[in-house]
Amino acid sequence: MTAADPAPLYTALKQADPALWRAYAGHEFVARLGDGSLPEAAFLTYLRQDYLFLIHFARAWALAVVKSDRIEEMRAAAVTMHALIDEEMRLHIETCAGYGISEAELGATAEAPETLAYTRFVIDAGVRGDLLDLLVALMPCVLGYGEIGLALAPTLDGAPNHPYRAWIETYAGPEYQAACQGAAALLTKVANRTIGADPRASPRWPDLRKLFATATALERDFWSMGLRA
Amino acid sequence: MTAADPAPLYTALKQADPALWRAYAGHEFVARLGDGSLPEAAFLTYLRQDYLFLIHFARAWALAVVKSDRIEEMRAAAVTMHALIDEEMRLHIETCAGYGISEAELGATAEAPETLAYTRFVIDAGVRGDLLDLLVALMPCVLGYGEIGLALAPTLDGAPNHPYRAWIETYAGPEYQAACQGAAALLTKVANRTIGADPRASPRWPDLRKLFATATALERDFWSMGLRA
Amino acid sequence: MTAADPAPLYTALKQADPALWRAYAGHEFVARLGDGSLPEAAFLTYLRQDYLFLIHFARAWALAVVKSDRIEEMRAAAVTMHALIDEEMRLHIETCAGYGISEAELGATAEAPETLAYTRFVIDAGVRGDLLDLLVALMPCVLGYGEIGLALAPTLDGAPNHPYRAWIETYAGPEYQAACQGAAALLTKVANRTIGADPRASPRWPDLRKLFATATALERDFWSMGLRA
Amino acid sequence: MTAADPAPLYTALKQADPALWRAYAGHEFVARLGDGSLPEAAFLTYLRQDYLFLIHFARAWALAVVKSDRIEEMRAAAVTMHALIDEEMRLHIETCAGYGISEAELGATAEAPETLAYTRFVIDAGVRGDLLDLLVALMPCVLGYGEIGLALAPTLDGAPNHPYRAWIETYAGPEYQAACQGAAALLTKVANRTIGADPRASPRWPDLRKLFATATALERDFWSMGLRA
Repeated sequence: MTAADPAPLYTALKQADPALWRAYAGHEFVARLGDGSLPEAAFLTYLRQDYLFLIHFARAWALAVVKSDRIEEMRAAAVTMHALIDEEMRLHIETCAGYGISEAELGATAEAPETLAYTRFVIDAGVRGDLLDLLVALMPCVLGYGEIGLALAPTLDGAPNHPYRAWIETYAGPEYQAACQGAAALLTKVANRTIGADPRASPRWPDLRKLFATATALERDFWSMGLRA
Repeated sequence: MTAADPAPLYTALKQADPALWRAYAGHEFVARLGDGSLPEAAFLTYLRQDYLFLIHFARAWALAVVKSDRIEEMRAAAVTMHALIDEEMRLHIETCAGYGISEAELGATAEAPETLAYTRFVIDAGVRGDLLDLLVALMPCVLGYGEIGLALAPTLDGAPNHPYRAWIETYAGPEYQAACQGAAALLTKVANRTIGADPRASPRWPDLRKLFATATALERDFWSMGLRA
Repeated sequence: MTAADPAPLYTALKQADPALWRAYAGHEFVARLGDGSLPEAAFLTYLRQDYLFLIHFARAWALAVVKSDRIEEMRAAAVTMHALIDEEMRLHIETCAGYGISEAELGATAEAPETLAYTRFVIDAGVRGDLLDLLVALMPCVLGYGEIGLALAPTLDGAPNHPYRAWIETYAGPEYQAACQGAAALLTKVANRTIGADPRASPRWPDLRKLFATATALERDFWSMGLRA
Repeated sequence: MTAADPAPLYTALKQADPALWRAYAGHEFVARLGDGSLPEAAFLTYLRQDYLFLIHFARAWALAVVKSDRIEEMRAAAVTMHALIDEEMRLHIETCAGYGISEAELGATAEAPETLAYTRFVIDAGVRGDLLDLLVALMPCVLGYGEIGLALAPTLDGAPNHPYRAWIETYAGPEYQAACQGAAALLTKVANRTIGADPRASPRWPDLRKLFATATALERDFWSMGLRA
């Protein structure tokens, strides 16, 4: 955590359990997505569940608007919600269309327990707590995918037929990265007005840490669900 | 209610208490907004409260996204939310700027009891009930303003210096009217999948009617609050 | 605020605006309830609205259970909810029965704008914020009534026919006072684990203060509504 | 579904997918609980997770109070909430104490994904829908346990050392059975005022059916989680 860190709470939360963060961000699913060895069936299982995931994730970002206290926060949360249900979902719809899966079919996929557990946990974190709790539960996905996208981007060099190019380009791309910056800025702003600048000094630190760890573990389990397919 | 009515539930709800609807849509505030005799102080008081109102109204539309069961519903509710916090608010900000009131000053206005009562009632209708309950509580404002805008539009003809031209043009204009059509279509769709095509035959009719009547009465009181200033 | 204060946050919030607190706890309605000069019509109007108020207030305490993070907190909030819908309401039902108003009639009373504004504001404070926000919005009513009950209790001495004896005895009585102690202890516990022991040092202080002030002002307006009748 | 059925919606929902209901109510875990062959480790794993489950389940019943529209409904939901956090939990605490597990240790158990998925799904069903949706999601657990308790009760005859006597007696006992009757009556009342007397004729039937099926499947998975231990 330095003065220049744009999201000191996020950094502190990741550093609180580096092994858990690696289990998610460095999951075998991610590694094989990067080297292209991930079986198509695993990718498609993941992608279909991720489509359902995004529906509930967009609901969670809408809940962030409901829970906002200031108009700039509402706008920031609304921008992310829009990015999810209009832009990020397009990747899923187009990729699945390429495999012959229609949007109607996508929407009719049965929710896996891992999808249920993760999405409803995040929404409940928002119902139970305040905007800061909700944002902390949302960050492992939003910012984690941004980091994973950037980490995998070099695998595309000299790999014109990389099977997962569209996925990697989406999350490494400027639009998604801008969404990450917006989300990180929102988190930092809300943290500052709620617990102040030093997260570890707040009496809420143990609870925030637990919330972040649970969301991270559920992300890890989501990859594992895809890999099992 | 005819086969061609795009929003039979809305029509039935208005017809259930025509005197109450007139007390809102034909309020003295509205009449004087149309003939230009409304005192500036009344208009500004209303506009400042309406800015605060829109913040919570946008939260209520975000709650509609949270409560949606289908991706198309989420998108429709998100479009309305966007129209509120990005477009409709612009009218308030620009109009107030014209009177020397900054956005910061607008946001710092103390909430009138009428604003508190109406906005929190609508949000609680959504917390307590389902998406249909929430939409029914939202409609008097959304669709009512569209009707009022259209009803007042002719007063602009041959009145180049009409003091409330910007307000009337906003609500009579194509963008706001399109938002009304979207909201009406969403209401009808959700009503059909929740209570079926004949609202009065549903066991929920008395409760829906009461919800709509309370929201309409709170709209009427909102005009009265402006007029008293 | 001393080391022995069982509810330092509550004390700090009251002291932040003593004039507002007096406008509520020392309202003319309260003074005339104490000296017995309050017109029966005013008392009955208040009591009928307060019955509706309690329904939503019990919903707000149920929301506190939903938002609890620990089983002891859930139990404490549930005890208060039980006191409201089982014990405190009994006063309203029995008193109104004495005036020939049945419970069905009570429940059918139209909600006054003041009742709507206050109750829905408190519920929304809970939806928007965390358990601490909700408790802060609940305290002016819960603890304020306990203080008012104790302040008025001496007026019963040597006044065997005091018209508002039952009301005063309810809020000055041991059951209600115990509920107050439970609520104050819950507030203190939740404050300690959320913002720490010094409320004014928390970045949340301005927002908590505003929440408490709005709830206090809405309580004051509730008395005024009764008095106007 | 006959005229005398006290809970026709519940009956219809169970009958909509009898195989799924059997997979839950007739699960191997249940059979071995009845014949006493269930390994102690499986039982204890289940019991610890069920303690965490009950905390969130009580939150869900508190949410039912928040979502109630009538004082009798609030009281009925509050009675069930009380039964959960005061009576049913006592079984868990006392049983675990018998195995040397303290309440603090119980509360510190890490939540299994199955517990997370089920509890948060039920709470979200309530956030998203109305009181009927929430009750439908709650019933497989409440009423299902009552049926399982009664079904296993005969296994206690002539088995003075039955290892799971306390569990079976709790759910077959008059207190829990009375709670079931109260919950069934509440469901029927809310169903009647929401969708009418013929559930399958309601446009909501497919959604209610899906909600009930998901909750039932999550109950089944909860048993499987215990058995795996």
